Amino acid sequence: MAQRIRVFAPATVANLGPGFDVLGLALPRPGDELEAELSDRPGVEIVAVTGDGGVLSTDPDKNVVGCAANDVLKRAGSRRGLRLWLHKQMPLASGLGSSGASSAAGAVAANELLGRPLTPNEVVLSAMEGERAASGSPHADNVAPSVLGGIVLVRSLEPLEVLSLPVPDSLHVVVVHPHCEVSTADARRLVKQAHFPLSAIVANLGSLASFVQALHRGDLALLGRSVDDQLIEPLRAQLIPGFSAVKKVAIKAGALGCSIAGSGPSVFAFTASLASAQDVGAAMQSAFRTSAGLESDLFAGTVSHEGARIV
Amino acid sequence: MAQRIRVFAPATVANLGPGFDVLGLALPRPGDELEAELSDRPGVEIVAVTGDGGVLSTDPDKNVVGCAANDVLKRAGSRRGLRLWLHKQMPLASGLGSSGASSAAGAVAANELLGRPLTPNEVVLSAMEGERAASGSPHADNVAPSVLGGIVLVRSLEPLEVLSLPVPDSLHVVVVHPHCEVSTADARRLVKQAHFPLSAIVANLGSLASFVQALHRGDLALLGRSVDDQLIEPLRAQLIPGFSAVKKVAIKAGALGCSIAGSGPSVFAFTASLASAQDVGAAMQSAFRTSAGLESDLFAGTVSHEGARIV
Repeated sequence: MAQRIRVFAPATVANLGPGFDVLGLALPRPGDELEAELSDRPGVEIVAVTGDGGVLSTDPDKNVVGCAANDVLKRAGSRRGLRLWLHKQMPLASGLGSSGASSAAGAVAANELLGRPLTPNEVVLSAMEGERAASGSPHADNVAPSVLGGIVLVRSLEPLEVLSLPVPDSLHVVVVHPHCEVSTADARRLVKQAHFPLSAIVANLGSLASFVQALHRGDLALLGRSVDDQLIEPLRAQLIPGFSAVKKVAIKAGALGCSIAGSGPSVFAFTASLASAQDVGAAMQSAFRTSAGLESDLFAGTVSHEGARIV
Repeated sequence: MAQRIRVFAPATVANLGPGFDVLGLALPRPGDELEAELSDRPGVEIVAVTGDGGVLSTDPDKNVVGCAANDVLKRAGSRRGLRLWLHKQMPLASGLGSSGASSAAGAVAANELLGRPLTPNEVVLSAMEGERAASGSPHADNVAPSVLGGIVLVRSLEPLEVLSLPVPDSLHVVVVHPHCEVSTADARRLVKQAHFPLSAIVANLGSLASFVQALHRGDLALLGRSVDDQLIEPLRAQLIPGFSAVKKVAIKAGALGCSIAGSGPSVFAFTASLASAQDVGAAMQSAFRTSAGLESDLFAGTVSHEGARIV
């Protein structure tokens, strides 16, 4: 019987603060799990998907995990195949990089089973094929941190160049996922149709550059001030019931900065301690309840230094 | 007789690479010199301006040096006045921050003569009043490096927050100033009327963030790749005769990266040594001559760690 491995790939916060499409971080949890084994039949077979409420396809050309794993087989020139069991353990369309985590899991599992023929950069490229299947356009700010861990900057897509940024030890992140849905496609369309004023572009350039400076200096107050997105947040905030109230209470409760996770509806905040993250998270959950009647899930912890890996 | 001081304020490269309106650096030379002394008559008197070919006003409300110095007097609540002698030692409308250097000189000289009542941040704010007089809009990416030295990020204008970025020791910069004029007002109008595609915004966000990362890591190759401006350079390149040929030969001659200085027509390049800066500069001058029939001036050296100061 073939050796079966189990891979965990973390959820991520992409479009991080001022860094639309270029900046993302890995969360310690939630994440997806993928069981995988080599097979002598070429190509990818998705044996089962659990935890998705029956929405995801088991057709390997239509499920991101299949697209990503298949791309690894192609890059490695392998004639063997893979059998996959995907266990979704995070909400779909939450803004937490659900398709990115599955894509990362597929790419990392395939690379591990084949004996690591690919570089980390190539694994990210394969995972991006999953994202391309999910959203129609390749972007890397979810899959790169899910594969590599930490806080990752996507400097360029062609050629792909991703950079790991330093993560201050005391930095904590809290994510609140309200129980409503924002279609990633809708959220992207809103952005694609927008006209961006130069003043907003300049503001985001300044804030993103100072975000990187703050990570290097370990200056959490500066990091918080740099979570200032004047390009995308004003557009997408309207898709998230209660967003402005939630952001306001997060700052009032001590958050360093607060914005939309991915394309929403999840909202993230940075804090300087776990205790503060829990306070801020509780205040945000309460605000979602009172301002929009929404229950929510809360995740609080440090940034995960580890990306997708065998567990 | 009142004590007279002489202040040197360095030329600067603003709109640096991907950092439109937010990133600038100080050059060791050229720069402006300003003689200044306290007077018992309130307000600012510009006694003489030299080196400007007779273009600049000696009306303190119409000359940036007067506006900047006057703002220092106001901020400091001083009832005394200033007498100024401005010696322009750099070309006007060159892209090297001529008005920024004069503004910085005026603000720093006034602050020194009054016994340094202002913080460096306030001195930059006063110098910005000069820029406001020159261009109609306050921007800080010339005056901040001219006041502070080094490579400076303007995180936000309101409130003003400027951050000094690390400068790798081996980083050299070469600037070539072709003998033609680009009106700063024209160059800004071109930018203000533009529609910026999201793909270009995302590219500049990625490049500016990696520029900051490269400075912290001392990674000059990454720094060079990060001098990639897809927002502004494509618009303003058309205002500079020979630009594309000059940029091409700069890269071929070994430049790490190359783009427009300020709003042009000067062009800057980064190199990893002084010898390389001189090679690259000679190639750029030759390309301006053969492709556009333009003579030019060349400045090559390290980034200046010092800003405006008494000499």
